[in-house]
Amino acid sequence: MLTGDRIAERHRGDASLTGRILPLAVVRPASVAEVADALRICNAHRQAVVPQGGLTGLAGGANPCAGDVAISLERLSGIEEIDAAAGTMTVLAGTPLEVAQRAAEDAGFLLPIDLGARGSCQVGGNLATNAGGIRVIRNGVARDNVLGLEAVLADGTVLSSMNKMIKNNTGYDLRQLFIGSEGTLGIITRAVLRLRPLPAGRLTALCALDSYENVVALLKRAQKELAGLSAYEAMWESYFRFNCVAEGLRLFEATPAFAVIVEEDLQGHEAERERFEAFLGRALEDGVIGDALIAQSQKEVQTFWRIREGHALDRLPLLLNFDVSLPIGEIGRFADECGKALRAKFPEAHVSFFGHVGDSNLHIAFSVPGATEETAHAVDAVVYGLVGIYSGSVSAEHGIGLVKRDFLDRSRSPAELELMRRIKNALDPNGILNPGKVLGSI
Amino acid sequence: MLTGDRIAERHRGDASLTGRILPLAVVRPASVAEVADALRICNAHRQAVVPQGGLTGLAGGANPCAGDVAISLERLSGIEEIDAAAGTMTVLAGTPLEVAQRAAEDAGFLLPIDLGARGSCQVGGNLATNAGGIRVIRNGVARDNVLGLEAVLADGTVLSSMNKMIKNNTGYDLRQLFIGSEGTLGIITRAVLRLRPLPAGRLTALCALDSYENVVALLKRAQKELAGLSAYEAMWESYFRFNCVAEGLRLFEATPAFAVIVEEDLQGHEAERERFEAFLGRALEDGVIGDALIAQSQKEVQTFWRIREGHALDRLPLLLNFDVSLPIGEIGRFADECGKALRAKFPEAHVSFFGHVGDSNLHIAFSVPGATEETAHAVDAVVYGLVGIYSGSVSAEHGIGLVKRDFLDRSRSPAELELMRRIKNALDPNGILNPGKVLGSI
Repeated sequence: MLTGDRIAERHRGDASLTGRILPLAVVRPASVAEVADALRICNAHRQAVVPQGGLTGLAGGANPCAGDVAISLERLSGIEEIDAAAGTMTVLAGTPLEVAQRAAEDAGFLLPIDLGARGSCQVGGNLATNAGGIRVIRNGVARDNVLGLEAVLADGTVLSSMNKMIKNNTGYDLRQLFIGSEGTLGIITRAVLRLRPLPAGRLTALCALDSYENVVALLKRAQKELAGLSAYEAMWESYFRFNCVAEGLRLFEATPAFAVIVEEDLQGHEAERERFEAFLGRALEDGVIGDALIAQSQKEVQTFWRIREGHALDRLPLLLNFDVSLPIGEIGRFADECGKALRAKFPEAHVSFFGHVGDSNLHIAFSVPGATEETAHAVDAVVYGLVGIYSGSVSAEHGIGLVKRDFLDRSRSPAELELMRRIKNALDPNGILNPGKVLGSI
Repeated sequence: MLTGDRIAERHRGDASLTGRILPLAVVRPASVAEVADALRICNAHRQAVVPQGGLTGLAGGANPCAGDVAISLERLSGIEEIDAAAGTMTVLAGTPLEVAQRAAEDAGFLLPIDLGARGSCQVGGNLATNAGGIRVIRNGVARDNVLGLEAVLADGTVLSSMNKMIKNNTGYDLRQLFIGSEGTLGIITRAVLRLRPLPAGRLTALCALDSYENVVALLKRAQKELAGLSAYEAMWESYFRFNCVAEGLRLFEATPAFAVIVEEDLQGHEAERERFEAFLGRALEDGVIGDALIAQSQKEVQTFWRIREGHALDRLPLLLNFDVSLPIGEIGRFADECGKALRAKFPEAHVSFFGHVGDSNLHIAFSVPGATEETAHAVDAVVYGLVGIYSGSVSAEHGIGLVKRDFLDRSRSPAELELMRRIKNALDPNGILNPGKVLGSI
C-alpha cells in the first residue's frame, strides 16, 4: 500500500484527463486473496474504493473521488493457462492486453479483444468497461469473448465462475453483470477468454462511395460474401479530406463523400485474393462503390489505417471526441443533422465523422479555437440530445464513468435506471465500489 | 383467462413430461400491457405465476406447481419489424421460432437460433432458457443473438431495452439477466434479435475417426480452415452403430470409434466445394480422419443427420437423455469413465454418447429394461457426480427448471448460488415469479 508522496501522479485519473484528485492510498494486491482482504477491510470501514487498471479509459471511470482508496490490479498479472483443445486462455486481471494477445499468438490463436491502447490497458479493465475496438464486426465486443469470470464482491467474497464451456445453462449469467459495470459491482480478478484461430493473412481495401446508402449496401454485401470480414470502417468526407491533407496523401482523383476500409481475415486458400478482387469488382460494376484501392504492401495497409486513425486531429485545439451508437440505417441522417446543428452553432469549428459503421458505432471529432467548458457543454447538449431523439446510445464503447453520467438518461429509461440501482444496492449495500461512477450517488 | 375445465391438459407441463399439476388459471395476455396488468395484480395478491411458452422445454421450467397461475404468451405473437440495414428483427415473445425464422429468410436473412422444436417452441421461451442447438458453433447460443430485450418485472414494471446497436455501453447489461433465467426474474415480452446473412449453400461431410484426440484435431483444423463452419457433431461408436443398425445403413467398411458430421455454410463462390474437399483430403493424408463421405444430394445430407438425430433411440424403454458440458479436451476421458461406470452398475443397459463437441456439449443416452425412479436417481448420481469432478456443467443447453435443480450445486459454488438468490430477492421480493424453479424455494 502506498500513501502520501509515494503515490504516483498517474493515479489521479484515466486518459480522459478529467482526473483531479490523488487517492487517499493505492493498494496493490498481488493475489486474489489480497484483493478480497482489501475489499473486506474497506467494506467493514465503509471506505470507498476505485479500481484502477491501465488507466487508459476515456470516461473517467478510474478517476478517484475525494477520499477514495485506489485498488490497482497491476501486480495481479499473468497468463495462467492456454487450453488449446477448449480454445481458451485463463488470465489474471492486471495482465496488459498486448501481453495476453502475444501469448495467444505464440500458441497459434487470436485473442479477439483489440484496441489502440493495447500496450498499456489491462484485461480486467477491458472487461470492466466491455471494450470495443475495430475488430468487433467479426468476433464481438469484450463481453462476447468471455467464457468464465472471477470477481471479488464488495464484502470480499470471491465469486469464481471460471467456466470454459461454450454452452452452460446453470442459472443466472453472473459474468455479464460484472462486464461493462465499470467496477461498481465487483472487482474482476481473473477471466477465461475465448480464443479464435489465428488468421493466415489479411486483405485490405480502401473504397470510395458517394452516399451513406451505398456505405450500408457495401456493408451488407461484405457481410454476405466475405466470410472473414474483420473490419468495416467508414470516414465521412470531412474526416477523410482533413487527414489526407494532413498526411500529404492523395488517394482518389476527388475526395469521395465516404471512404471505407474493408478488411478480410484469410484462411490461407489460394483463391482468396481473386475472390476479394471479384467482390470489389462487382460492387464497382453495380455502382455501389466509385473506386477501390487494394493494398499491395504492408506499407499501403498502414497508410490506409493512418488516415482512419486520424492522428493529425490531435493537433487541433481542445479536440472533443464523441463515441455514440445508432441503428446502422440511421447513422447517415444522424451525421447530417448533427453536422448541420454543430456548424450552425459554431461556424468556425472543425466537425468530422468516422466510425465502426458495421458495429453501429459513430465517432465525432469537434474542435473550435478558444473553446471553454461552456463550449463543451453546448456541444454535448447538441450531440446527446440528437442521440436521444434517434434512439441511439450516448456511449458505444467508452462507457459512462463520470464523464457521461449526466447523459445516461438519454439512452436508458427510468425503469432501467431504477433496476440498475436495485442491482447496485443488492451487490454493494454500503456503496463502497467506485461510488459516483455510472449511476451517480445512490 | 381460463379456469377449471377450460384449461387444456397441455398446460400441466413441458416436454420433460414431468408436469403433474394443472394451473389454477391460465392467463393469456394479448399485449405487453396485459402481461404487466397480470403481474401487477398477481404481485399485489402474492399469487405465484409460471410463464408458459411453447412447452417444449426439457427441464420442467414451465411446469406449474400447486396453486400457480400460468401466464401463456401464445397470443403475444408476431414480427414487429425487420430492419435490413441494422440486420435486426423485432419480435413478440409468443412468436413460434419457425415463424420468425421464415420471416427472416423472406427478408434475405438467417435467424441463427435453431433447434429441433422450432415448429412449436416460442422465441420468448428460447430466450428465457438461452436455447442452444446444433448451429451454435457459428453464431453462438441464444443470448449471443439478442441485441435488445423487453421484460415485465414481478411488480408489473415494463423494462424496455429494445436496443438495435452492436455496441452500447450504457450501464449494466440488463438483457443477460433475463436470458437463461427461466422466468424467475421477469417475463420476456419482446426482443430485438440479430440477423445474419443467409448462406448461399451448405456442404456436409461424415467423417470416420479413430480417437477422441483426432475428433479435437479435426475440430481445430475445421475452425481454422472453414470460415463458414456451421456444425460439428460427434457420435461415439456405441451411438453410431446403434443408429446405423436401426436405420439399416452401412456407411463405412467398419464402424469407426467416432463419426463426425462437419458442415460449412457457403458464400456462393465457385471454389468452395474444391476447398472443402481439399480440407478433408489433407485430414485424410495426415491421418486425422480414416475416411470421409461428402453428401452428394439432399437425401444424403438427410441420411447423415437422421443417424445423428437418433430417432431410433426413442424406441428404447424409458430412455434417459442427459445434456451436460465439459471443457472440450476433457470430453473423451469423461465419456470413457462415465460409460464404464454406468455399464459396471447396469451391465444390460444401452449407454451411448453424442453431442455438439464444438460447443463443449455432450449428450448421453441411457436405457435399461425395467428401470424405476430409483434407477434414474442412480444414473443421475453417476453422471452428475462425474460432471462435478470434471468441472463441467450439469446443463449445457436445457436449463435447470425443476428436473436439475438438485444438481445445480455440482456446477455452481455456494457464493454463486448466494448471489443468484440475492438477485432473485432484489428483482422479485415476493417470490411470485416461477417459484421453485432453478434455485428452489427461497
